[in-house]
Amino acid sequence: MKHISSSSSLGPGGLDLTQTFFKPINHAASPSSTKRNTKISVIGVGNVGMAIAQTILTQDLTDELALVDVNPEKLRGEMLDLQHAAAFLPRTKINASVDPAITAGSDLVIVTAGARQIADESRLNLLQRNVGLYSKIIPPLVNYSPDMILLIVSNPVDVLTYVAWKLSGLPPNRVIGSGTNLDSSRFRFLIADHLDVNAQDVQAYIVGEHGDSSVALWSSISVGGVPVLSFLEKQQIAYEKETLENIHKQVIESAYEVISLKGYTSWAIGYSAASLARAILRNQRSIHPVSVLAKGFYGIEGGDLFLSLPAQLGRGGVVAVTNVHLTDEEESRLRKSAETILQVQSQLGL
Amino acid sequence: MKHISSSSSLGPGGLDLTQTFFKPINHAASPSSTKRNTKISVIGVGNVGMAIAQTILTQDLTDELALVDVNPEKLRGEMLDLQHAAAFLPRTKINASVDPAITAGSDLVIVTAGARQIADESRLNLLQRNVGLYSKIIPPLVNYSPDMILLIVSNPVDVLTYVAWKLSGLPPNRVIGSGTNLDSSRFRFLIADHLDVNAQDVQAYIVGEHGDSSVALWSSISVGGVPVLSFLEKQQIAYEKETLENIHKQVIESAYEVISLKGYTSWAIGYSAASLARAILRNQRSIHPVSVLAKGFYGIEGGDLFLSLPAQLGRGGVVAVTNVHLTDEEESRLRKSAETILQVQSQLGL
Amino acid sequence: MKHISSSSSLGPGGLDLTQTFFKPINHAASPSSTKRNTKISVIGVGNVGMAIAQTILTQDLTDELALVDVNPEKLRGEMLDLQHAAAFLPRTKINASVDPAITAGSDLVIVTAGARQIADESRLNLLQRNVGLYSKIIPPLVNYSPDMILLIVSNPVDVLTYVAWKLSGLPPNRVIGSGTNLDSSRFRFLIADHLDVNAQDVQAYIVGEHGDSSVALWSSISVGGVPVLSFLEKQQIAYEKETLENIHKQVIESAYEVISLKGYTSWAIGYSAASLARAILRNQRSIHPVSVLAKGFYGIEGGDLFLSLPAQLGRGGVVAVTNVHLTDEEESRLRKSAETILQVQSQLGL
Amino acid sequence: MKHISSSSSLGPGGLDLTQTFFKPINHAASPSSTKRNTKISVIGVGNVGMAIAQTILTQDLTDELALVDVNPEKLRGEMLDLQHAAAFLPRTKINASVDPAITAGSDLVIVTAGARQIADESRLNLLQRNVGLYSKIIPPLVNYSPDMILLIVSNPVDVLTYVAWKLSGLPPNRVIGSGTNLDSSRFRFLIADHLDVNAQDVQAYIVGEHGDSSVALWSSISVGGVPVLSFLEKQQIAYEKETLENIHKQVIESAYEVISLKGYTSWAIGYSAASLARAILRNQRSIHPVSVLAKGFYGIEGGDLFLSLPAQLGRGGVVAVTNVHLTDEEESRLRKSAETILQVQSQLGL
Repeated sequence: MKHISSSSSLGPGGLDLTQTFFKPINHAASPSSTKRNTKISVIGVGNVGMAIAQTILTQDLTDELALVDVNPEKLRGEMLDLQHAAAFLPRTKINASVDPAITAGSDLVIVTAGARQIADESRLNLLQRNVGLYSKIIPPLVNYSPDMILLIVSNPVDVLTYVAWKLSGLPPNRVIGSGTNLDSSRFRFLIADHLDVNAQDVQAYIVGEHGDSSVALWSSISVGGVPVLSFLEKQQIAYEKETLENIHKQVIESAYEVISLKGYTSWAIGYSAASLARAILRNQRSIHPVSVLAKGFYGIEGGDLFLSLPAQLGRGGVVAVTNVHLTDEEESRLRKSAETILQVQSQLGL
Repeated sequence: MKHISSSSSLGPGGLDLTQTFFKPINHAASPSSTKRNTKISVIGVGNVGMAIAQTILTQDLTDELALVDVNPEKLRGEMLDLQHAAAFLPRTKINASVDPAITAGSDLVIVTAGARQIADESRLNLLQRNVGLYSKIIPPLVNYSPDMILLIVSNPVDVLTYVAWKLSGLPPNRVIGSGTNLDSSRFRFLIADHLDVNAQDVQAYIVGEHGDSSVALWSSISVGGVPVLSFLEKQQIAYEKETLENIHKQVIESAYEVISLKGYTSWAIGYSAASLARAILRNQRSIHPVSVLAKGFYGIEGGDLFLSLPAQLGRGGVVAVTNVHLTDEEESRLRKSAETILQVQSQLGL
Repeated sequence: MKHISSSSSLGPGGLDLTQTFFKPINHAASPSSTKRNTKISVIGVGNVGMAIAQTILTQDLTDELALVDVNPEKLRGEMLDLQHAAAFLPRTKINASVDPAITAGSDLVIVTAGARQIADESRLNLLQRNVGLYSKIIPPLVNYSPDMILLIVSNPVDVLTYVAWKLSGLPPNRVIGSGTNLDSSRFRFLIADHLDVNAQDVQAYIVGEHGDSSVALWSSISVGGVPVLSFLEKQQIAYEKETLENIHKQVIESAYEVISLKGYTSWAIGYSAASLARAILRNQRSIHPVSVLAKGFYGIEGGDLFLSLPAQLGRGGVVAVTNVHLTDEEESRLRKSAETILQVQSQLGL
Repeated sequence: MKHISSSSSLGPGGLDLTQTFFKPINHAASPSSTKRNTKISVIGVGNVGMAIAQTILTQDLTDELALVDVNPEKLRGEMLDLQHAAAFLPRTKINASVDPAITAGSDLVIVTAGARQIADESRLNLLQRNVGLYSKIIPPLVNYSPDMILLIVSNPVDVLTYVAWKLSGLPPNRVIGSGTNLDSSRFRFLIADHLDVNAQDVQAYIVGEHGDSSVALWSSISVGGVPVLSFLEKQQIAYEKETLENIHKQVIESAYEVISLKGYTSWAIGYSAASLARAILRNQRSIHPVSVLAKGFYGIEGGDLFLSLPAQLGRGGVVAVTNVHLTDEEESRLRKSAETILQVQSQLGL
């Protein structure tokens, strides 16, 4: 396999300034520290992978960034385009290769690679091809970075996070799916936009399966610490359930709308994954709705599966799952989400 | 023209929380300040425009961001994709419209719009179509933001910056082309990569025309404040002129290489434009090689033209041009660059 | 009065590089923009004022910083100490003077100046001396920056914010006291530390008078969007009221504890004021518990007074007050806080 | 020894929310990662130590911060004052103890502790007391963090860096003195202020001994990459040597001036040390004038000693020393600096 190096050859007449321009200090017995830098790898340099990589770079979240893709031209083009910004950014080592060996020693590996839907292909067939892809991608990644946290972004994210977990042999706290972290940001944006407040002051979770069967936790909505629904009840303000359902519907349709308008989504998922990377690598112990091993929570039984729950993230991956109190209807919807996912998984023959 | 609003309608049964959830304080005579927020507009939401917009957003450089394009679907898709990240970013107001009225009151307007080359089209014909495009774009922008700084990114950037200046009627210190700011970052990256130092410690300018006739200022290269060429001379280290020319050649070929590999350039020009936006809006009075009205510098005569020189940028735009001492050969190359540009301009019939 | 200038005189043999090293570009009709930079002034350069000034500088919240104090030596020392860090920070113009004219055109003025308690002096006497001080400080500040937002940090902050409002003639949305913004951070820290979560995931307000009679809003506590008290009720976990009161007591004692240990508080109030500066100047429309004109809220009547309520802050100052639902006991405590403040104010003879 | 813990005890009736509010996910075999967080320790919480600690916190350079001092009250007060800002900052674990065990596993240890001058005490006597202090402080620090980088800030910094190196047994690339990093920033500020440019665009080094015998490298001054002295020569602008000496004199006097005005220096040294911490921990490979083992450079012989030279810093500490070309006069002054330091060292009896 070809390794794409960033080292510029200055030609046959090249002068080696490094030998003359700099000098090591005396007695430098152990020139390099035993400590390693922070390293993030992004697998797949499509629109999603590159939005994630570029946001991580701008936010200065890592000392090393490794990019992997099967297309060496696209890969080298994206690497060079990032490297050319060197004078505008803190120094980050950026490498790229079709060979996953380049990811060795990663703290965090983010997988965005996925098969593309072929015309008239069934969803199940597409998923099976993705499982085939993952069975080639995941084992070498674990081999090169046995201590990594693995963040899955490819869709369908919940099933693929389960697949990645099975293939990786990693403990479940170290395998995370981006899940409904982005859906929840869209939910918060819609509420904040309506109230003309800062979205960071709005707390609101979408949990469950990322996609059409996701579950909006109405009771979780608060603005600046004020729970909105109980506020309305205490003020005796009537609101129709339909109104709330409309907001959730808008969230679900958001992704489809952006795809129909610009062809794909990229920026928001880039910021979403970068926010998870920060929480994990900087050990923030902050709470994010992400896809985690859900068996045993909220009466979810019947088998191992991943879906999004509000989870506390830190250097060790998933630190804990927050014990949110759900209404009976919310719990029932969540279990229905779980059944759908389990049924899909049963067809995969893993 | 259709105005794309970000306001979410919550349906006929929508409750107006803003009236009940918040209350104004008493006697609030003048609710809003007379001071305006910082506002940046980006014209053209292609790969370059969006990389600029997204980097500006991540770096928190503005309070308001307005996007303009002729394609309303693409435009709305990009706006929504940025807005959905609201929970991950400081609050920035993001709007988009095909109507340039949305840019009203901008502090900085960045133009990335440009005609696309048709098969077998001559460079001159393409340029003339771009001049036609600019004559429609620029006047309303000036009309809506008479106090703005105008930053031109479309190519060929030097001639189009001249065209924008003529069409705008703005004083020359308020019209800037992104010029060789990115070429210089690539130059610094190649040198830093070779020496394994931080590119921000490398000073090195490429000036003149953005593109094939650009001029590398060899005497300007310093690393950590140490001028490299005079260092080599004093150390009596021989180096061949060919080696230096090879580095410059690599810089010129960089853009072509990225385009041939990934189809376009985006990230590096995004960071480059964002760095200029910061220097201008935060009044940094820092020095950047950008395209400025060059008549009268380094013996450049014969007419008004824009090309890149190391210029000091601040809140008023171009504060001054740095009086770098060029070698005779560098000056001669710069004047040749100028002549080429003037000749192209003479064919435009402006 | 002596104006302390930062301009370095290079002595009688000084060469004026500005004339030769830089050249303006041709035709530069209007060299400077009509737009002004962001400017913050800090009045009083004691431990609190300097912690605020330095944090604002590190967080890059302003383009200009003006310091005012009555002690010209201390003032010049602090100005120089900040200026000497120029190479490590984005460029910010830092000036200092005993003359308030240096604050002209400020967007935000932060007042930390206050009289020091004399041995055996009564609290009322101290307050009256502070009122005397404010009557000299406030009017010229308003005169030099009629469009400013005025942020009061001196203690007792609620009464002094009222005094500043009366003396300033500004509309009430433009006069804010730092109030219980810091108390609330201490409250959130204690809860976050106990739960080992990120304090930014904890919502919890202390409102009312800054100090001993402050009111903890127990019903407002949520962690990651989960209301803690109703969670405990639903889980049928008993908790004793005493436990909650102990946490509040710890918050009240925090300030006294720090003062008894290190002699004063500085860092936390510095971060608190900087967070308010960001919310205001970057128009974040975010919610903070700060001292605002409280008449008419929660049954507070009997006269104009300032105390802390969760307020939404933006470029215009106080945008709105959040309509938090209080328990009867919380409302009753808040009204008692109000009465105490009104009684103090009645003795001031304003 | 008393360990000051940040854990808040919620009293005898305290409820343990951590057990009920959060739940671990199933099968969580290995809850914590084998990777450690970034940890910085600051020894000495006087004005200098706290300015460093607070700047490091604001700039989000570490995941853990440990403070050590001999005064437990002051120490706990400073720790609490920083912790109370939790809601305004990214999550950082802040601990403090009089026991150096709290520093265990540090990546970087910054020593600001130093004996205070007694009336009529000779400089040598003060130094000998500091050597005594260091012989108690340094060995346990190395014991608890054998892989650390050791940054010495206490004065006289060059001799104490040598002492720390000898006492630590660490390789010389991992022992660094803050040296003339701050002097150089002051130098750059004075030049930038005079030219009204951004100090970050000014390159200029002060090297040698930190203090009165420091050496200004006039030939190293460049603005925006333009060497200033050679520019003046080429423009045939006369300048008097006296003018240059005046600027250097101002730099030397800066520290004395600030001390005479405000009693001590703090902010600028805080920013200086934080900039070194960033360069080291984020492996920036950037160039800073810091105190390094200088034997063998520029003809410095006669024994091991530390003085400031432009050094490239990264994760391993001192990566290399830049081979700046000095004039004969500059080299001669540097050697004289070296002799002075060696002579002082010879009296210490190490």
